[in-house]
Amino acid sequence: MSTDVNRRILLAARPVGEPQEADFRLVEEAVPTAGPGHLLLRTLWLSLDPYMRGRMSDAKSYATPVEIGQVMVGGAVSRVLASNHPGFAVGDIVEGRTGWQDYAVSDGTGLRKVDPSLAPISTAVGVLGMPGMTAYTGLLTIGQPKPGETVVVSAASGAVGSVVGQIARIKGARVVGIAGGDRKCAYLTGELGFDAAVDHQASDFAARLAAAVPDGIDVYFENVGGAVFEAVRPLFNPFARIPVCGLIAQYNATGLPPGPNLVPSLMREVLSKRLTLRGFIVSDFADQQAAFLRDVSGWIRDGQLRYREDVAEGLETAPKTFLRLFRGENFGKLLVRVAE
Amino acid sequence: MSTDVNRRILLAARPVGEPQEADFRLVEEAVPTAGPGHLLLRTLWLSLDPYMRGRMSDAKSYATPVEIGQVMVGGAVSRVLASNHPGFAVGDIVEGRTGWQDYAVSDGTGLRKVDPSLAPISTAVGVLGMPGMTAYTGLLTIGQPKPGETVVVSAASGAVGSVVGQIARIKGARVVGIAGGDRKCAYLTGELGFDAAVDHQASDFAARLAAAVPDGIDVYFENVGGAVFEAVRPLFNPFARIPVCGLIAQYNATGLPPGPNLVPSLMREVLSKRLTLRGFIVSDFADQQAAFLRDVSGWIRDGQLRYREDVAEGLETAPKTFLRLFRGENFGKLLVRVAE
Repeated sequence: MSTDVNRRILLAARPVGEPQEADFRLVEEAVPTAGPGHLLLRTLWLSLDPYMRGRMSDAKSYATPVEIGQVMVGGAVSRVLASNHPGFAVGDIVEGRTGWQDYAVSDGTGLRKVDPSLAPISTAVGVLGMPGMTAYTGLLTIGQPKPGETVVVSAASGAVGSVVGQIARIKGARVVGIAGGDRKCAYLTGELGFDAAVDHQASDFAARLAAAVPDGIDVYFENVGGAVFEAVRPLFNPFARIPVCGLIAQYNATGLPPGPNLVPSLMREVLSKRLTLRGFIVSDFADQQAAFLRDVSGWIRDGQLRYREDVAEGLETAPKTFLRLFRGENFGKLLVRVAE
Repeated sequence: MSTDVNRRILLAARPVGEPQEADFRLVEEAVPTAGPGHLLLRTLWLSLDPYMRGRMSDAKSYATPVEIGQVMVGGAVSRVLASNHPGFAVGDIVEGRTGWQDYAVSDGTGLRKVDPSLAPISTAVGVLGMPGMTAYTGLLTIGQPKPGETVVVSAASGAVGSVVGQIARIKGARVVGIAGGDRKCAYLTGELGFDAAVDHQASDFAARLAAAVPDGIDVYFENVGGAVFEAVRPLFNPFARIPVCGLIAQYNATGLPPGPNLVPSLMREVLSKRLTLRGFIVSDFADQQAAFLRDVSGWIRDGQLRYREDVAEGLETAPKTFLRLFRGENFGKLLVRVAE
């Protein structure tokens, strides 16, 4: 919490398989100053999200990778410490991709002011930020759940999945969550109002999932991939919609799984059941931001939508905290409290 | 061509793998008569289409299978020989799923009058019928090609693929066809105005395909599956659309291909490139029939859209003619001339 040093966490090495703490490096630099037109920001909350695994790799993707020696990318909530920018004042709370560091300088691009009266400011990188908007846009634009339909979401207690399931419930669907372990499953049905929850760690997971969706699956919101997708696949109803949001079970894979090759089988299901699979990222739906903020903050206010945060203390814990995502050890939106 | 016997081709056995002539059986019955409210039809043209392979199987699908001993399903163009139905007169030309037989009785359900002044009546089961409408609706509703985009279609010289490619060209896209053999490829570029054609039988097919789409693929109209899809897959551009219409290379498969399992790799592409894969059948878009007939008959009339028929003579040849579809031996829309 020193104020005269800027701790920055850099990408030290491209991970092979599961990332290690050694793939990151913490350096201390002088606190930067804001030049003309720029802002100096103090990071308060750092968001840790699965997509960051992709930025650590130089495989071809929709986004450019973090270079070795660069500060890790990441969304954060910050306070404006100094401003030479007409759009922001000292003391403003802002959200933007300012990275894994104590301080950042910004020219305001991609920075969004956060209204602290709406909800706790940490939600600006959670339920009222990128993960929440990912859930809202992907579910409503691609999934299009109708009352009485069955919606299944994987990684259901996570930052995105928990919002997907609750919005689906609000829209009148029957909601089944897939999560790891009894505690998360109990949370889904007990606190979030899911109709059922299935533990993907159970040895009879596929049978339990089938039993939990007696009318089949109309919408599957995909956050996981791998073995979870294989269990979901036989249960699709005709015209099912599958927003493909994430594949966390696959991100650390270093090779392809053994055969047989199930692509022909998947394509046959796409054809015979007239499925729609569609990949997306939240920025594809940037024009829905106002509607998202209005709807989701309203649902939070009137108690229809809840969220849960999993908070680690101190920027220096970010690398080891990040690794918990890939072991399913986080329970709710994963955050690092960088400063008060 | 006897008029006092109704030859009917029945499903004799469910094929295992590639269908055989022995899976069909020709029987001779008395010509039926049309009761009250019914029509007697004389089959003139029988359409042979890949989807019929699905009806020979009792695997779960969107349509009920043909039972053993039932007449094979199939679209046909017929002449009304007798009518006790106020909507149809003797001499009318009609199109409907009246099956592999010389004569059929119908109550008019699913029967459509054909205007012989529009085009030769055989087109009512081809370019102006189910295959043409499949191409039109799948390409325009799911594929949505834009001027300058690259559209790739497989089975490109077939009844559906040839219409897909020509409509894409009319809409201003760059069109690349995949077909089997030099003769079909030459037809695509020489007669149908495709920008390029690639022979999937070539040993360096994947490399040739990549070379034919220097700007990547924005729309892939899938008729084939299997190895062709694997060659197409790495070439998708961000936001590519993939209408999944048919998988003829897979229909006779009796097992899954060896590994590795490429589903995780496909799902990764769906996510990182934000692909849309969507299966469909033509009846999903029944409300587009008027627009289809108007547009496609107009394009035929003004010479913008051509079609090619591959005609076998005599109902009795239907089984062995049907088998040609799965060997890529047909060249254009496959038809049986049942009567003049």
